[in-house]
Amino acid sequence: MRQEIRLDWQLGHSAAAGERPVKSVPALVPGAVQLDWARAHDWPSHVQADNYKMYAWMEDVHWTYSATFDRPVSTGEGRVFFVCGGVDYAFIVRFNDEIVHEQEGMFRAFEIDLGDMPAGDNRLEVVVFPTPKRPGAPVGRQQADQSCKPACSYGWDWHPRLIPLGIWQDAYLEIRRDAYICDAELSYELNGTLDSVAMSVAVTLGGGTAGAVAWTLLDPDGICVAECRGQADKDSLLFTKCLSHPALWWPNGHGDPVLYVSVVSLYAPDGRLLDQKKARCGFRTVALVVYEGGWEEDSLEFPKPCNPPPLTLEVNGRKIFAKGSNFLCPDIFPGAVTAATYKELAALAKDAHMNLLRVWGGSTAIKECFYDFCDEMGLLVWQEFPLACNDYAGSAHYLKLLDAESRAIIKRLRPHPCIAMWCGGNELFNHWSRMTEQSPALRMLDRNCFELDRSRPFIKTSPVMGMAHGYYLFRYPDGAELHQMMPRARYLAYTEFGCAGPSPAEYLKTFIPEDELYPPGPGGAWEEHHAFNAWEAEGTWLDLGMIIDYFGQPETLEDMVRYGEILQCEGYKCIYEEARRQKPRCSMALNWCYNEPWPSAAGNSLINWPAIAKPALKSIARSCRPLLASVRVVKFRWNSGELFNPELWILNDSPAALPAGTVRVYLNIGAGQHEIFRWEHPPAEANTNIAGPRLAYTLPEAQGELMTLRLWVEGRPDMDSEYLLLMGKEKRNGL
Amino acid sequence: MRQEIRLDWQLGHSAAAGERPVKSVPALVPGAVQLDWARAHDWPSHVQADNYKMYAWMEDVHWTYSATFDRPVSTGEGRVFFVCGGVDYAFIVRFNDEIVHEQEGMFRAFEIDLGDMPAGDNRLEVVVFPTPKRPGAPVGRQQADQSCKPACSYGWDWHPRLIPLGIWQDAYLEIRRDAYICDAELSYELNGTLDSVAMSVAVTLGGGTAGAVAWTLLDPDGICVAECRGQADKDSLLFTKCLSHPALWWPNGHGDPVLYVSVVSLYAPDGRLLDQKKARCGFRTVALVVYEGGWEEDSLEFPKPCNPPPLTLEVNGRKIFAKGSNFLCPDIFPGAVTAATYKELAALAKDAHMNLLRVWGGSTAIKECFYDFCDEMGLLVWQEFPLACNDYAGSAHYLKLLDAESRAIIKRLRPHPCIAMWCGGNELFNHWSRMTEQSPALRMLDRNCFELDRSRPFIKTSPVMGMAHGYYLFRYPDGAELHQMMPRARYLAYTEFGCAGPSPAEYLKTFIPEDELYPPGPGGAWEEHHAFNAWEAEGTWLDLGMIIDYFGQPETLEDMVRYGEILQCEGYKCIYEEARRQKPRCSMALNWCYNEPWPSAAGNSLINWPAIAKPALKSIARSCRPLLASVRVVKFRWNSGELFNPELWILNDSPAALPAGTVRVYLNIGAGQHEIFRWEHPPAEANTNIAGPRLAYTLPEAQGELMTLRLWVEGRPDMDSEYLLLMGKEKRNGL
Repeated sequence: MRQEIRLDWQLGHSAAAGERPVKSVPALVPGAVQLDWARAHDWPSHVQADNYKMYAWMEDVHWTYSATFDRPVSTGEGRVFFVCGGVDYAFIVRFNDEIVHEQEGMFRAFEIDLGDMPAGDNRLEVVVFPTPKRPGAPVGRQQADQSCKPACSYGWDWHPRLIPLGIWQDAYLEIRRDAYICDAELSYELNGTLDSVAMSVAVTLGGGTAGAVAWTLLDPDGICVAECRGQADKDSLLFTKCLSHPALWWPNGHGDPVLYVSVVSLYAPDGRLLDQKKARCGFRTVALVVYEGGWEEDSLEFPKPCNPPPLTLEVNGRKIFAKGSNFLCPDIFPGAVTAATYKELAALAKDAHMNLLRVWGGSTAIKECFYDFCDEMGLLVWQEFPLACNDYAGSAHYLKLLDAESRAIIKRLRPHPCIAMWCGGNELFNHWSRMTEQSPALRMLDRNCFELDRSRPFIKTSPVMGMAHGYYLFRYPDGAELHQMMPRARYLAYTEFGCAGPSPAEYLKTFIPEDELYPPGPGGAWEEHHAFNAWEAEGTWLDLGMIIDYFGQPETLEDMVRYGEILQCEGYKCIYEEARRQKPRCSMALNWCYNEPWPSAAGNSLINWPAIAKPALKSIARSCRPLLASVRVVKFRWNSGELFNPELWILNDSPAALPAGTVRVYLNIGAGQHEIFRWEHPPAEANTNIAGPRLAYTLPEAQGELMTLRLWVEGRPDMDSEYLLLMGKEKRNGL
Repeated sequence: MRQEIRLDWQLGHSAAAGERPVKSVPALVPGAVQLDWARAHDWPSHVQADNYKMYAWMEDVHWTYSATFDRPVSTGEGRVFFVCGGVDYAFIVRFNDEIVHEQEGMFRAFEIDLGDMPAGDNRLEVVVFPTPKRPGAPVGRQQADQSCKPACSYGWDWHPRLIPLGIWQDAYLEIRRDAYICDAELSYELNGTLDSVAMSVAVTLGGGTAGAVAWTLLDPDGICVAECRGQADKDSLLFTKCLSHPALWWPNGHGDPVLYVSVVSLYAPDGRLLDQKKARCGFRTVALVVYEGGWEEDSLEFPKPCNPPPLTLEVNGRKIFAKGSNFLCPDIFPGAVTAATYKELAALAKDAHMNLLRVWGGSTAIKECFYDFCDEMGLLVWQEFPLACNDYAGSAHYLKLLDAESRAIIKRLRPHPCIAMWCGGNELFNHWSRMTEQSPALRMLDRNCFELDRSRPFIKTSPVMGMAHGYYLFRYPDGAELHQMMPRARYLAYTEFGCAGPSPAEYLKTFIPEDELYPPGPGGAWEEHHAFNAWEAEGTWLDLGMIIDYFGQPETLEDMVRYGEILQCEGYKCIYEEARRQKPRCSMALNWCYNEPWPSAAGNSLINWPAIAKPALKSIARSCRPLLASVRVVKFRWNSGELFNPELWILNDSPAALPAGTVRVYLNIGAGQHEIFRWEHPPAEANTNIAGPRLAYTLPEAQGELMTLRLWVEGRPDMDSEYLLLMGKEKRNGL
């Protein structure tokens, strides 16, 4: 069997690849050079205040990881391999002063046969080059536009300029004494009625002589439901087998994400087990199709365009309303993210009734265990390649690099049932990027996906035609609130939208120096952490002026945060539920963004770094329930005497029908509760909403209060909803 | 050198591939089985009346071509090959009763080494199978949706149901006594400033021993401007060379379509010339880009979609307004089309100032000489694959076939500078087809084009988002004329639009029986030839009711034709010029259709079968002049006393600027000529229109006359324009 040997790594920097570092410090692998250096020198955390600026020089030096070890085996006992999941970003590997590997690109795993080596000190070195920057590019994300490195590290409206480097995936020595399994991958095709799956398992072998190879498929109870056996007399074998009535993998809210286990075992001629590979698999189909009714949407007018594009996810033949978010690498340093963090993030998404996470092209350095958790929890993943908001022009060097990196990414991730679709990257067809459908990089990605993973859809970017991004604040500069903006929109998929809010007060205190805490203002830690001047719109992301406009000057940090949270929670409710009301034409709602890679003082995320839910997540969780009572309200701020006219809805994304029932509508203003309507709603078919009546209720006299609109569903408290609205303040936004 | 031997072919039919025909008739190669059979039996032409129906049974039998010949060479003197450019559609080749080749697909050329053969009678047979029809498909184009056969033959609104079969490309025996050149292809890349071209010539050799290979590039004057020489000591060679300041190939209206000649010569060790391949090449770049100003077209509104798609052709760095038409195979039987017909069709397009012909996916069986003429005349070609108006579902069989056929098509056509772009096929994203961007067939075509011809753009269908098709009549059922329809439209490319009209009277008399000629009506030869009930709109394509509505009941065939021609001519003027007025946002105007495969009684075409210009072509030629005075008129029919308010324009697609000048506007009504305006227009930059003033002129008293609006450009009679309008008839269409 294989034997792993962990190395003790030291790390230092130098001006050139040929120069050895003068000083070395202990290094953690996987990790990042910046963290090692800071740890060794007792630097304060990069997440506090503006400490990240101390790390700036680290972009531009060479970093050398070095480990020495004695010969672990004598010749004949086995071979020694250096196995590495990925090094960020361009690097060489030296073994006993000889270059044994050179690579640009962090997404390709590699292994190196270290061959015969002398007893005594052997030295393995990984020399990491400075961060890639396109010559002539201005400081910022454009520096990354000829590399396959996530662009967010170069600075974004939620990410400081801090560019990770180092061995970010696992790396170790492995002794292989016998024949071993290089690769064993199960692929499958479900038949049209989904009651039979044709499987094939491709096995490749390495090393010495072996006897037999066996494949077994275990069902979720561990019972073997299929098996094959063959002689290990060549380097590659293919097993094929059909399974009747497989249990399907379903996304969250639609059924269980059933996982089988595929086990390939390699035996010696004497029957001894030599190597084994286990992999989980889930059987499901996935497609992007035209929404229900989209083929009937024929323009009567000539000249006539084409019908709407296919932007609805269909899993196992069922059209799915995709509810979810944009997932980012959970840390500035991808190598430092733990499985526990990934698991917690996935679990929070599942509990919020999400079923789709978009791994956004500007931040794709995600470890594989994340996809394992998504497999387990029924979270579909929209996977992007590392392109975002740039014109990745098709130079020969870049295309060759992207070709190699993308092939590695596709092969690594395609066994995961969670992967629902591939996408070229973020906002590439917008004027700030200026790529088009004809860009060679995107045609190449489509080609690679088609060749290596034909069963999954591919789109070139988001937004493509029919999709839209934004807005990212509760209110538009012209005064229009999300309540007016969203019902006007008529897109098929809202794949990025945000509603910024402040982080919780207690959390703010962990990284904003005490003397800057309140009142917040630009120029200090608040701004470093994206509360001011982060994005193009004024006041982002805190938008203090809007908070004051709606609620008056807050007296304390806690008040300000509470007001900001109300806007964020109500804003997000409004968008998710409006997108759902536009079903089936609309079939996706993904907010910007799910999580963040460091503490933000304010922003669009639902979760604070590393995995702390903000109130907005709870709010969204309620809006994403498969079944709920909902309203369309035309504005947030109301006055006494006005006609209050919400439209009632039942939203149903569940695969179950809902019988007829009663919704009681209450309005709580101050201490008073008014029952303003009772709606006897008809039954709803599975996966189908009901549009109800529009109410007409004259608001009573009241001043300076929040009012709460409550929908009580008789006998179904799980479907109850409530909405906070502002009552009686003077209108200042011209609505 | 090679020696060609022509065979005498006989043709007969049988019920099965294994059965030999009972009766044989002489066959022409290239040709079609239907034509041979009809010729041998003195049938009346299939183009007259409804004779085509006699041919229906020929779809469903097996056809065997047979030729016998003595052994043309003795062993050692050379090998004999059967060389064939294409057989329509599925077939086997038998040599002396042995099957030596099997193929489905008409677009792949093949050659068969016939090996040693006995002296005396040798027999070569090509057995052509019945026309492909998807089992279960209704009669019509859907029968073709799992084959790579042009769908129009299965019946269209301008094509009778008549499905060609047979050897449609050249076929002969070839004796090769020595080494020979299998293939020699020049590819090139122009540098960014277009003043240097890096060429590479890939040569593959076959046969015996050879000495040297030489490549020379001759400029248009026949002067050698580049040469390379190498030893023929392996099967493939690659020559590379740079040429400074190449003369560029330009599309019609933008410069000369300069062609160089690439000559590869193979020599024996003793210096004797063994084989030679000559090919023309033109140096140019081509791309689909976003129109001028399209990146600045940013929606201020959130949620925000992507910027407009890239639908403007850019050749040699210059954005081109594409003026042209949809080109069809010029005959029901592609094998029967002569080079003279292709040449005449290409020349008519050139003379009409067209620069782009779309080889439409439903009718792609075009011989290569057509592309040679387009190369010579500067006509860009938008080349589609054989998919149209169907859901070409991705069965394994179909995908494998399409893969092989499309690769052959791409390799055959890519040397032609005229080929500007590839397209999956016609109207595949519309509800009558129901393919999408995710359809495997279209992703595969994109993949193949990317792999084999990366320098050209690829689109999956027409219309894609931003394009539009239609309308096809002068007037919409609700009464709206093209004059109102087109200015309302806001597309980037009008890639199909028509304005139906009758064929000339003399021409009608050649295929409509005399007793049916006038008045025309449904049910007879007029309907068979698409004058009635051809398309979904009432009265198509003759639309007699509309002619009567505008002009009253015509008394003779000649009157009716004249009225219909006026509508067609004025309608086409209106569309082409309106599309040009919408430049730069709009950058393509291609009418449906250029030519037709048999005589139509009425239809959208500009040219009658086989290559007879209709008046509409002359009308379009004037609308497509690089420089002209133009008007936007809001309607066709006017009344005395009305305010006549045309908008004046200068349209300039030329690469030259226009100095300031004077346009005099006259209105001729009956015998009277009124000068109604004089426009001192400003200078126009190259490739830039000028929007002029809107006039206001009260129409004088007049009844029942055509009026003519004339634009006289002082000193530039080549820019003069005129428009016919109807004057004083009662309005019956509610306008």
